[in-house]
Amino acid sequence: MATTFIHGGTVVSSTGRQLLDVLIDDQKIVAVLEPGSTTLGADLASTADTVIDATGRYVIPGGIDGHTHMEMPFGGTTASDTFETGTRAAAWGGTTTIVDFVVQNPGMRLQDTVAAWHDKASGNCAVDYGFHQIIGGVDDDSLKGMAELVNEGITSFKLFMAYPGVFYSTDGQILRAFQEGAELGALMMMHAENGSAIDVLVEQAIARGDTAPYFHGTSRAWQMEEEATHRAIMLAHLTKAPLYIVHVSAKQAMQQVVTARDNGQNVFAETCPQYLYLSLEEQLGAPVFEGAKWVCSTPLRSRAEGHQDELWKYIRTGDVTTVATDHCPFCMKDQKEMGIGDFSKIPNGIGSVEHRMDLMFQGVKDGRLSLERWVDVCATTPARMFGMYPRKGIITAGADADVVIYDPNGHTSIGLGKTHHMNMDYSAWEGYEIDGHVDTVISRGTVIIDDGEYRGTKGHGQFIKRGLSQNLI
Amino acid sequence: MATTFIHGGTVVSSTGRQLLDVLIDDQKIVAVLEPGSTTLGADLASTADTVIDATGRYVIPGGIDGHTHMEMPFGGTTASDTFETGTRAAAWGGTTTIVDFVVQNPGMRLQDTVAAWHDKASGNCAVDYGFHQIIGGVDDDSLKGMAELVNEGITSFKLFMAYPGVFYSTDGQILRAFQEGAELGALMMMHAENGSAIDVLVEQAIARGDTAPYFHGTSRAWQMEEEATHRAIMLAHLTKAPLYIVHVSAKQAMQQVVTARDNGQNVFAETCPQYLYLSLEEQLGAPVFEGAKWVCSTPLRSRAEGHQDELWKYIRTGDVTTVATDHCPFCMKDQKEMGIGDFSKIPNGIGSVEHRMDLMFQGVKDGRLSLERWVDVCATTPARMFGMYPRKGIITAGADADVVIYDPNGHTSIGLGKTHHMNMDYSAWEGYEIDGHVDTVISRGTVIIDDGEYRGTKGHGQFIKRGLSQNLI
Amino acid sequence: MATTFIHGGTVVSSTGRQLLDVLIDDQKIVAVLEPGSTTLGADLASTADTVIDATGRYVIPGGIDGHTHMEMPFGGTTASDTFETGTRAAAWGGTTTIVDFVVQNPGMRLQDTVAAWHDKASGNCAVDYGFHQIIGGVDDDSLKGMAELVNEGITSFKLFMAYPGVFYSTDGQILRAFQEGAELGALMMMHAENGSAIDVLVEQAIARGDTAPYFHGTSRAWQMEEEATHRAIMLAHLTKAPLYIVHVSAKQAMQQVVTARDNGQNVFAETCPQYLYLSLEEQLGAPVFEGAKWVCSTPLRSRAEGHQDELWKYIRTGDVTTVATDHCPFCMKDQKEMGIGDFSKIPNGIGSVEHRMDLMFQGVKDGRLSLERWVDVCATTPARMFGMYPRKGIITAGADADVVIYDPNGHTSIGLGKTHHMNMDYSAWEGYEIDGHVDTVISRGTVIIDDGEYRGTKGHGQFIKRGLSQNLI
Amino acid sequence: MATTFIHGGTVVSSTGRQLLDVLIDDQKIVAVLEPGSTTLGADLASTADTVIDATGRYVIPGGIDGHTHMEMPFGGTTASDTFETGTRAAAWGGTTTIVDFVVQNPGMRLQDTVAAWHDKASGNCAVDYGFHQIIGGVDDDSLKGMAELVNEGITSFKLFMAYPGVFYSTDGQILRAFQEGAELGALMMMHAENGSAIDVLVEQAIARGDTAPYFHGTSRAWQMEEEATHRAIMLAHLTKAPLYIVHVSAKQAMQQVVTARDNGQNVFAETCPQYLYLSLEEQLGAPVFEGAKWVCSTPLRSRAEGHQDELWKYIRTGDVTTVATDHCPFCMKDQKEMGIGDFSKIPNGIGSVEHRMDLMFQGVKDGRLSLERWVDVCATTPARMFGMYPRKGIITAGADADVVIYDPNGHTSIGLGKTHHMNMDYSAWEGYEIDGHVDTVISRGTVIIDDGEYRGTKGHGQFIKRGLSQNLI
Repeated sequence: MATTFIHGGTVVSSTGRQLLDVLIDDQKIVAVLEPGSTTLGADLASTADTVIDATGRYVIPGGIDGHTHMEMPFGGTTASDTFETGTRAAAWGGTTTIVDFVVQNPGMRLQDTVAAWHDKASGNCAVDYGFHQIIGGVDDDSLKGMAELVNEGITSFKLFMAYPGVFYSTDGQILRAFQEGAELGALMMMHAENGSAIDVLVEQAIARGDTAPYFHGTSRAWQMEEEATHRAIMLAHLTKAPLYIVHVSAKQAMQQVVTARDNGQNVFAETCPQYLYLSLEEQLGAPVFEGAKWVCSTPLRSRAEGHQDELWKYIRTGDVTTVATDHCPFCMKDQKEMGIGDFSKIPNGIGSVEHRMDLMFQGVKDGRLSLERWVDVCATTPARMFGMYPRKGIITAGADADVVIYDPNGHTSIGLGKTHHMNMDYSAWEGYEIDGHVDTVISRGTVIIDDGEYRGTKGHGQFIKRGLSQNLI
Repeated sequence: MATTFIHGGTVVSSTGRQLLDVLIDDQKIVAVLEPGSTTLGADLASTADTVIDATGRYVIPGGIDGHTHMEMPFGGTTASDTFETGTRAAAWGGTTTIVDFVVQNPGMRLQDTVAAWHDKASGNCAVDYGFHQIIGGVDDDSLKGMAELVNEGITSFKLFMAYPGVFYSTDGQILRAFQEGAELGALMMMHAENGSAIDVLVEQAIARGDTAPYFHGTSRAWQMEEEATHRAIMLAHLTKAPLYIVHVSAKQAMQQVVTARDNGQNVFAETCPQYLYLSLEEQLGAPVFEGAKWVCSTPLRSRAEGHQDELWKYIRTGDVTTVATDHCPFCMKDQKEMGIGDFSKIPNGIGSVEHRMDLMFQGVKDGRLSLERWVDVCATTPARMFGMYPRKGIITAGADADVVIYDPNGHTSIGLGKTHHMNMDYSAWEGYEIDGHVDTVISRGTVIIDDGEYRGTKGHGQFIKRGLSQNLI
Repeated sequence: MATTFIHGGTVVSSTGRQLLDVLIDDQKIVAVLEPGSTTLGADLASTADTVIDATGRYVIPGGIDGHTHMEMPFGGTTASDTFETGTRAAAWGGTTTIVDFVVQNPGMRLQDTVAAWHDKASGNCAVDYGFHQIIGGVDDDSLKGMAELVNEGITSFKLFMAYPGVFYSTDGQILRAFQEGAELGALMMMHAENGSAIDVLVEQAIARGDTAPYFHGTSRAWQMEEEATHRAIMLAHLTKAPLYIVHVSAKQAMQQVVTARDNGQNVFAETCPQYLYLSLEEQLGAPVFEGAKWVCSTPLRSRAEGHQDELWKYIRTGDVTTVATDHCPFCMKDQKEMGIGDFSKIPNGIGSVEHRMDLMFQGVKDGRLSLERWVDVCATTPARMFGMYPRKGIITAGADADVVIYDPNGHTSIGLGKTHHMNMDYSAWEGYEIDGHVDTVISRGTVIIDDGEYRGTKGHGQFIKRGLSQNLI
Repeated sequence: MATTFIHGGTVVSSTGRQLLDVLIDDQKIVAVLEPGSTTLGADLASTADTVIDATGRYVIPGGIDGHTHMEMPFGGTTASDTFETGTRAAAWGGTTTIVDFVVQNPGMRLQDTVAAWHDKASGNCAVDYGFHQIIGGVDDDSLKGMAELVNEGITSFKLFMAYPGVFYSTDGQILRAFQEGAELGALMMMHAENGSAIDVLVEQAIARGDTAPYFHGTSRAWQMEEEATHRAIMLAHLTKAPLYIVHVSAKQAMQQVVTARDNGQNVFAETCPQYLYLSLEEQLGAPVFEGAKWVCSTPLRSRAEGHQDELWKYIRTGDVTTVATDHCPFCMKDQKEMGIGDFSKIPNGIGSVEHRMDLMFQGVKDGRLSLERWVDVCATTPARMFGMYPRKGIITAGADADVVIYDPNGHTSIGLGKTHHMNMDYSAWEGYEIDGHVDTVISRGTVIIDDGEYRGTKGHGQFIKRGLSQNLI
């Protein structure tokens, strides 16, 4: 078995930063050492099989993107990244674990859908992956299936208050699923938008002739996100289920989460880079059909209303628990274009899996969050949140050797023809300049990105059997 | 230099727990290793100078008590623990660092008071210690002195809204000190009780004949703690000073802190075991003069009003930042007895420095907080809060080897004649039974407690020059 | 036309109390006069056709009960009071106007349901009456019908978030109805309980064998009232519809209302005497099947949780806007008994139309609210809320002569065989003793209750064509 | 005795509006009558001594300005309006009652200061007046004097948290005064700004060279108003004293009031037209020394921060209890000019007693508040708040005949040389155009303003012996 010795770098954890050496043996970190210590006798810098000099750079746990949709069928088409292209793009961006969503629709057996997802991912991934389970059809059978999935390492279940007729659950169904989740200790995830009301608003907008992408944003009003968030919280309160609200974009929804958390309830919020940087006015409101690039749900919110600043604040305060991407890419051609003349037909989704670590590091540079909080919100807490800690999410002996060497003095230009490895014909982040750079990415001991090259292999990535959430209070 | 190898134990950090081996060389931890890993060649369990088998036990960073008053002159007498007796008792209880308060009164030079405290502590301590500075007399001179103290590693400054005529600062003085603190990046600490109003209530109680210790509690009404807490928060908001509220006991005061924190303000709350376990009705209301044992300020609060449960909750949610003791012991004889017939003459203070780690571990057993949060609130966050991380507060290579081996299956009976090493003629915790035990305590590489014996030496403890707080958002 | 002169009494309004004389001519008050003033020349006490000496008693506007269900078909049976028996009972209790709910089910024309209700009420009522409209089936037709009803004096529309399959509206339907209400300026009323979730809880309770009336209360959890209240508020926020939450029983639901009101939103709360006096533990938890007497929805709440005291508080603060009865009486025999062995089959409802004024006056005696607030919450604000002011709800020249002479030194014993004129075989208020008495009731100038006798006539009561709410801010 | 008959007008009360006739006999209203009713026989329109045709106009109770400072010594000079000039100006503006502040400084007997104020006012006033008492020196003597004043009709007492060395009370003094107020049932009024901190900020601003009027505003930071408001609320909570916060200008201070009110505490807020219309940026920031015209405390607030809109909102919601003026006029020449080069020497105060009713009516026209709320906040609630109802503040039989005929189709141009009867050499409201007009003002039965002429007489105004507040909940 081969050893890798990373020395001279600053290891960053969620509680601090420190000059430390890291010794990897095969797929795992076996020791974290005082720099230059000779106590152990060995001169690792000369004896290790591979030696990486990380001087002046950060040594951080590989990023964990807890919310992706590879090859997901949605809105009459399929998300454009396969597990192969999507996880390779993740690797490029310093993300070494994704958690993707298995999709169940009414009438399907959960176990069958999981099998289908294993088929899609197995042998194709550049980095490790886990699964959440979407339950689109809550009934006796699917409820019974939850326990089995927990045993198989799928310990989180997502429901939808949006999309009536597709993934939508009634409140009675949510109640039943939450009861089961509470019983199992499993994390219940929620897409919190009032789909019943929003669908009326959408229909009215189209009928009025408000068909441009901008009206996707206005018809998914913040009141309906706030409302659904509150509703999910109360159903969780009643059932004592731990609750994780995905892709929060409205500050008022966050305030509902904050109130619940102050009350000691196990409620967690995820947000995504798009809700921190982009807006209704600038992106969704771009001329003609350009805004379609940023059609996703929950939608981008108004900058004038200050949602973005509030979300950044809640990242600092810890009330935003994790930052994921909701990576769900569609090309403009043939896909987004389905909605020309009717925004409701634009497939919902933005691709960001490649850029999350960089975009959030830019937040550090901009004084939006601390270096430690960057690691926390992008790696450590997702690992704990989704039951993978300390195998993932921290630089510690015993952990998988998922390590990123990040250069705070490097530079990354985002965009097509620059850095872009996702299978999309546009970049939602075109023109973004990042004051940092992912230099080296190690996945379970193997260097997969280095010197600007992808050195990984399809199928290196393994399925991670996850435990229950370790982040409950 | 001697090496110590701790193996087989479960290392607990603020983010998780893990079977890990720890190698100490002289005063520092030099490596944290995967258990049984042979990558490094050495068989440390046979080659280390000292080998500790921690199997089945927790290996945690030594406790940090951020609030003690050794040998403190107060109310016409002096706190009964010297630095020698007090830090030895701390060691017994698994606390390896204290931060004690230097006292300045109007007209004194800060630097002189620091020198006096160094004289008291130097050469006497069993474990390491740092200093906060009390500014009892805010004026041009003392404000100028703050910068100098920061350079000398005293980076936090405490003011009093209580005790007019003693330590009390007017709001104008607080404003000026907070401005200076903000300028320096220094942490401003506050005893938040409205002394002006409370002194009237105390005087009225005594005049009414309500002279028993119980009335100490009722005359220091929660409204006056809540009020002062809010006032300090607003003065901190105005000046942008980081603010740390010491010994919060009222749930309403905590709610003020929570509101400020949700707003993104750097406001922190400390509470103490006495406010979590003891109450106005049971302890302060004990027959005759017995209640004097628990006279401290802020006072114990009513259990009927539910303060204790709310404080426990806020430990879980993270809004209580640290748990310290406010260790300020007085004997009943000759000291507490000064207040027979007039509670206002009872010296304020409770001794707990020895029992904090145990009492908080009991909280883990009782389901009040997680094991990780126990380490966090008793060691890791105090270290970060007071600028000592990662030298203190975590098991990591490069850190001081301050380590406690804690047995979750052990047992500790608290009380005189059982475990009690503080210089007091009574125990505020008499009869408390703890489902755990401090087995071994290592301070900077030296075993100072083991096998139920104190093996430390007077003067082993060193002054810790602290940096600025690392816990700001 | 005949004149009536009421002199010597204390006229109470929502802003104060005053010794004043009142002159009635035919059906209206024509003057309010300084007592004993001779300016107008006439010695009214000798010249009026009828003279009432109200010395030592209160002269108040007749009560307005804004929430009754006479002869309402529900749960397979029909509310036991007809318009004849129900309005006569109202008269006995000092209530001179009711607003009853017309019921529309899916597929019915609103106008037809109104016609049916007119048929039931016309020629039968002892006192005046208005109608609210329940829309059980929101669709294009019923939405179009709303404008017509507003023109006919039915200016408020009630929807249900409870009772799926019966009156339930989806959020999309609510949104559409609220949009129409906002357009018309009409008041939208809401039964705010999450029926989808509650029905699951009910089914589970029955399946568990928890079939007693007590479990009616526990399965309609406060979280589901709070949730629905919040949801209705957000839908109203989005559409700008004025919103009136009927029969609030949970303190947490009230807190949602308060937050909205502080935010300047036109949200109003109604509560009922049963939620102020009765409780889950005492009434619903009565032995065997006795609790069925108090099965209503929203349910009686736990006294241990303190809902009752909080509701009384919010009456004082003005955040409870009105007190109505939700009068919906069923007899034990043949009606309530339908639910022996299955609480979900107990017809929901309590009869209180006769006792509201007395029960609320007892609140005055108990120091729960002021005399002025009693009149305000039982008469003046309901009149304004429902667009009948100043014709109803105040003692003023120009108003309908609906007047009650109330004796604050009288006494009323409530119960079967004592005072009880509702068509029920039990009293929900059996044994309640009131420190006051309705002495005389005048409806549009006619004395209908006096000397303990009913002197009214069937059909005296007229339909009141109401205007839009006058209580919006 | 002479009769006056006002007919054809719309009487507006706090609960509604109605076509009603009003009969005045000598100084009082003796009847309110249905228009055109012949029941009483007399044809009042032909038999009354004076007949006023109010057709098309509002008939409202005379305005009550609960906060004026006539001839007040302050800041080394004296407010420029005497009781004679000030009450005459009030009359011009439709205000028929003022409540002025008697000033006590440390060492003075309250009774002596009252006597001095009676001397100033007696025989000089155009309209009726009452007194509040300022206690600048809380001690045993002044506390004892409070009961005596209550008996003499001075039932409200104002303390200052601002102005150390002048009117300032310590929190201990406030506590004692509040205890006495609670005992007496007397209203405690508070100038809520943290004077101790503000004085430091002022001194620092001057030292920095920030001497212009604008810095008066910035140095009296909203945080220090919010803080003091909260502190006063908590001292009131502790003592159970009813609390009235004068001249609230910061939205955050209002939010503190709202929280207390939601909690059922008897806390009330007054604001003034200047805080609703004027701002830090526009007025205080006017070029050179112009801003001095609007130097008052609390200061005008930033429009960018949105205080004005929030205050208007809270008028609508009822959380702003009353609108008064804090009328405290100073001329620019010789008075305001004292502060050229040092804003802290500018006498604090704005004159508005003449314009309050008009400015608030403009709010009705602008959709800021309802017509009813206009009457409520300017007359009815002040009357109840200060124990003068129903003698003042409502059009009712038995009340003093203080009546204003207000033309909603008239017009008023405010400014020097237009309407201006206050003794000032500038108008704080120069250029304001009002879409309404005070046509006729009747004070206790005497027409004192009509046809654009002042017909009153010096000394007509009488001292009003007030009762305890009637506005408590």
